Amino acid sequence: MFKTLASALFALATACASLAFSASAGAQDLTGKVTRTPTGYLMVLRNGDDVLAHLERLAVIEQIPSASIVGIGFMREATFGFYDFSRKVFDPKTFKNVELANLTGSIAWKEGKPSIHAHGIVTDGSFIGAGGHLLGLTVGTGSCEITVILHPQRLERFVDPAIGANVLGLHPGAK
Amino acid sequence: MFKTLASALFALATACASLAFSASAGAQDLTGKVTRTPTGYLMVLRNGDDVLAHLERLAVIEQIPSASIVGIGFMREATFGFYDFSRKVFDPKTFKNVELANLTGSIAWKEGKPSIHAHGIVTDGSFIGAGGHLLGLTVGTGSCEITVILHPQRLERFVDPAIGANVLGLHPGAK
Amino acid sequence: MFKTLASALFALATACASLAFSASAGAQDLTGKVTRTPTGYLMVLRNGDDVLAHLERLAVIEQIPSASIVGIGFMREATFGFYDFSRKVFDPKTFKNVELANLTGSIAWKEGKPSIHAHGIVTDGSFIGAGGHLLGLTVGTGSCEITVILHPQRLERFVDPAIGANVLGLHPGAK
Repeated sequence: MFKTLASALFALATACASLAFSASAGAQDLTGKVTRTPTGYLMVLRNGDDVLAHLERLAVIEQIPSASIVGIGFMREATFGFYDFSRKVFDPKTFKNVELANLTGSIAWKEGKPSIHAHGIVTDGSFIGAGGHLLGLTVGTGSCEITVILHPQRLERFVDPAIGANVLGLHPGAK
Repeated sequence: MFKTLASALFALATACASLAFSASAGAQDLTGKVTRTPTGYLMVLRNGDDVLAHLERLAVIEQIPSASIVGIGFMREATFGFYDFSRKVFDPKTFKNVELANLTGSIAWKEGKPSIHAHGIVTDGSFIGAGGHLLGLTVGTGSCEITVILHPQRLERFVDPAIGANVLGLHPGAK
Repeated sequence: MFKTLASALFALATACASLAFSASAGAQDLTGKVTRTPTGYLMVLRNGDDVLAHLERLAVIEQIPSASIVGIGFMREATFGFYDFSRKVFDPKTFKNVELANLTGSIAWKEGKPSIHAHGIVTDGSFIGAGGHLLGLTVGTGSCEITVILHPQRLERFVDPAIGANVLGLHPGAK
């Protein structure tokens, strides 16, 4: 009986999932690039797609309150930044035509706009890993598969004045 | 009341989960290596196990429509390949007796067979990370813990002729 | 109709989630650092927080049977250990003021205490990745965002005598 119930619930979730997405974003330019799952979304981006911009678009179209993301892919360009606290800027470095061995991050909001915080590791023909905080990411001659785990809480990022860096607030008015 | 309901739903999910797996795969050689969870499966592989082959077996036995995977472990061998687009082959490199700092990927299908797409990063006594697209992975004197997040959509990979590489199709007939 | 039902279920899950956490851990020192989600928890740690100790505390307070974790952050210190099987000790190395490009692991139990198994990759201003098995992790001038995927099975780690290393047991009496 439990198993039957589990199957029924799963089938219901499936039906909800596909209907929910086609209804709300079917006419958008994410068509064909994302599908609803019981735990969130699965997004597949292609050659030339701007990964962070697509995640922002997904957040806006689906009004994602907050989410965790994990992914892989092959990138035309991946730009990382290491924060220089004395100069208060990111020192950037761009890697071209690299495997994205792992992408991990979160979707939240800041001042009414989606805020993507993503880290990654990339490798080239030397196989040596490089990465850190992502500033930009463009898909190359392959694809990028991103799993989005949806959370119902609307979460906001804010600058913690003690450290001068963005922090994800878990509660309204967090500081 | 909500909390009681939440607990009841969680207990029900637990019961469904354990029953579902023991019923469908109890007599298979994955016995003792995998358990059903509310969001998918948890797989623990041991010394000598072929990770990609075990994921393929899980996909077949459980008829997994598609899934996302994340894991860690200690590997006897990890072979990565960096694709040479001019020669249309993967240049491979094998690393032995390494920590698998992260494994990320997906389970889908291609021409009726399970298709595992996995990336990883490994480290040795120098702690320097190396990795990329995984061609082979064998557990060493430790274990490999893999979290599988199940999706209800049957997804197929296909070769995108524009780039000559596999892409995960989110919709029937995707190209 | 499906969509309405899906929304209702999601709203219910949200209500359950927030109530469940505030009720059970509201008075603990994890207050403000963790929130319940439909699939587990989202934890945000701040400057100076000991990541592994906070995960252990979460396991105890919430009596987490087992869980998978994924995260990112900026670390004051990250200490990795590579196991020397001949001497049976971890050779450690500490990296300071680094981005945590990825954290992946699991929460289980051993001899009545929570047991965190976590791997990671960190990068500094050179962007080169380093990492492996985590022995210690302290948040720096940034934050650490960890997604916890909850599993209902109480899982225990045990030392596999054949390899002299900890293994996650999926079933009671596993060896």
